[in-house]
Amino acid sequence: MRALRLESGGPVISTAPAGPRPGEAWLRVRLAGICATDLELLRGYMGFEGTLGHEFVGEVVDAPGTSGPTSWAGRRVVADINCPCGTCPTCRAGRPTHCPHRTVLGIAGRDGAFAEFVSLPVANLHPVPDGVPDEAAVFVEPLAAACQLAEQIHVRPSARVVVLGAGRLGQLCARVLALTGAEVIAITRSPEKRALLPRGVTALSPESAAEAAGADVVVECTGSAAGLSQAAALVRPRGTIALKSTVHRPPGASTDLPDLNGWVIDEVTVVGSRCGPFEPALRLLASGAVDVAGLVTARYGLSDGRAALAHAARPGAVKVLLDPAG
Amino acid sequence: MRALRLESGGPVISTAPAGPRPGEAWLRVRLAGICATDLELLRGYMGFEGTLGHEFVGEVVDAPGTSGPTSWAGRRVVADINCPCGTCPTCRAGRPTHCPHRTVLGIAGRDGAFAEFVSLPVANLHPVPDGVPDEAAVFVEPLAAACQLAEQIHVRPSARVVVLGAGRLGQLCARVLALTGAEVIAITRSPEKRALLPRGVTALSPESAAEAAGADVVVECTGSAAGLSQAAALVRPRGTIALKSTVHRPPGASTDLPDLNGWVIDEVTVVGSRCGPFEPALRLLASGAVDVAGLVTARYGLSDGRAALAHAARPGAVKVLLDPAG
Repeated sequence: MRALRLESGGPVISTAPAGPRPGEAWLRVRLAGICATDLELLRGYMGFEGTLGHEFVGEVVDAPGTSGPTSWAGRRVVADINCPCGTCPTCRAGRPTHCPHRTVLGIAGRDGAFAEFVSLPVANLHPVPDGVPDEAAVFVEPLAAACQLAEQIHVRPSARVVVLGAGRLGQLCARVLALTGAEVIAITRSPEKRALLPRGVTALSPESAAEAAGADVVVECTGSAAGLSQAAALVRPRGTIALKSTVHRPPGASTDLPDLNGWVIDEVTVVGSRCGPFEPALRLLASGAVDVAGLVTARYGLSDGRAALAHAARPGAVKVLLDPAG
Repeated sequence: MRALRLESGGPVISTAPAGPRPGEAWLRVRLAGICATDLELLRGYMGFEGTLGHEFVGEVVDAPGTSGPTSWAGRRVVADINCPCGTCPTCRAGRPTHCPHRTVLGIAGRDGAFAEFVSLPVANLHPVPDGVPDEAAVFVEPLAAACQLAEQIHVRPSARVVVLGAGRLGQLCARVLALTGAEVIAITRSPEKRALLPRGVTALSPESAAEAAGADVVVECTGSAAGLSQAAALVRPRGTIALKSTVHRPPGASTDLPDLNGWVIDEVTVVGSRCGPFEPALRLLASGAVDVAGLVTARYGLSDGRAALAHAARPGAVKVLLDPAG
């Protein structure tokens, strides 16, 4: 099976044979997407080695334990990337995505979806409605992460919301948050990314960021360690900063400490935010409320996976797709 | 008027004449308390110069615009320390304690209560019930700051709550939070401070902190920049850290950056928390639900104010009181 694997020397195309994990579904990958996290993994984040990739749409080849009318075989699906144990106190407390024993597709302890096939538990699968093409379904995982903001934070229709960074995730966060009726302002230094923002979202360059001050909510999607202090400069007293970026910091790297006194004095709330619910993301794509057309920068065959990763790392690039058939 | 003032060379006893600000009430200070913030001000925090002191109980000498049955004259009072403009967008949005034009008693732009008399707006005053002695009423301001935790965070009766630091503010936070029915664990290296914790609060030394892991809420009251990473080590995924410490950091001081990736992955919430509501604090003292007896380490006359500040800075000291009559 062809797969784009991260090994100690860097990313390589492997052709080792593979099959499903015991008891899991075996999926043919139809299309996959490159995420900022993949690029951080290349830099050493999480110390991951294995097949990369956690954003994908696939087709079920085999799903043990399902048959007849409940059979998954042949269905087009997307899939939650966290694989919890299901029995520990964290799982039983209703927080399976935080299970300390979990594996995470293409990120921790489990081969990912930049491959012809991928193995995942049946419980992770979500059917994709016929009206949602592969090119949209491949955005479900990051769109779910954007929906997670509204799971964690009450975004009022009267709010001013600032999205810092308008890349892969920032574009989706801006789209989801604008649906609340809130004033959404996205800040990015890239003119190309500003042009991709949908109607109803105000695009600003960093030089004009002061126009966005006094925000009720600031979503930090810059993918850089400096984003947090930029966010703190824009949020109002008692406002909320949502942290979305995970950034690989080599041991010993130093960065300015955030102004914690300012957080106390202004009673700011900072919320870390990660994976989100798939069903709302599927509904927003199926209804057309969120449009991801235009966010695809390039499409590569899996065999050209290393070139695809390099393209995704270029300034101005948004979503780079990988087609396992190519 | 005698006053303990912070001047560029350090704290001094002044005897300059003084009177109320135009339109404000003039209060005779009956008793005042030294707070960790006062000690940070001595180190340069906020760059404040003027009369120190924001925790006090007093008696109204004159309150312009009030007379007859509404007269404040002669009443025993405590007082909110933030003096907002009342007309700016932040004030009109219902966040007067965050008014950008505010002065703050003994902290920013306004002389404080380590003096024989103090000036404050009538709107800031709260009458003290007869059953609450001066020695308890002087704790209202920090007790209100402890109540602010429950204003900002939903502390469930089934929660595990950790209070890091059991000094001036930590003792009060532990008392207020234990009233929710939650399991409250206070961690301090001081055996004296552990002994002051009330029944129902578990006292741990830092060596045993691991026993408190998995906390739903961690309240950071250590007064040190290291408290935040200790808090992060104890909070559960999707748990909440409340930041109470403000610490003077000289320009250029470096400290470890918090593990922001960990906050994102664990979806931790960090909430800055400052001043709180006075009326709940008065009710908890009047009902006896919160007992502050035992928290007074020492009592000094105002003339010995510099010795009092030095005593408050000693390890093991909790509340040091200042009596303006002395």
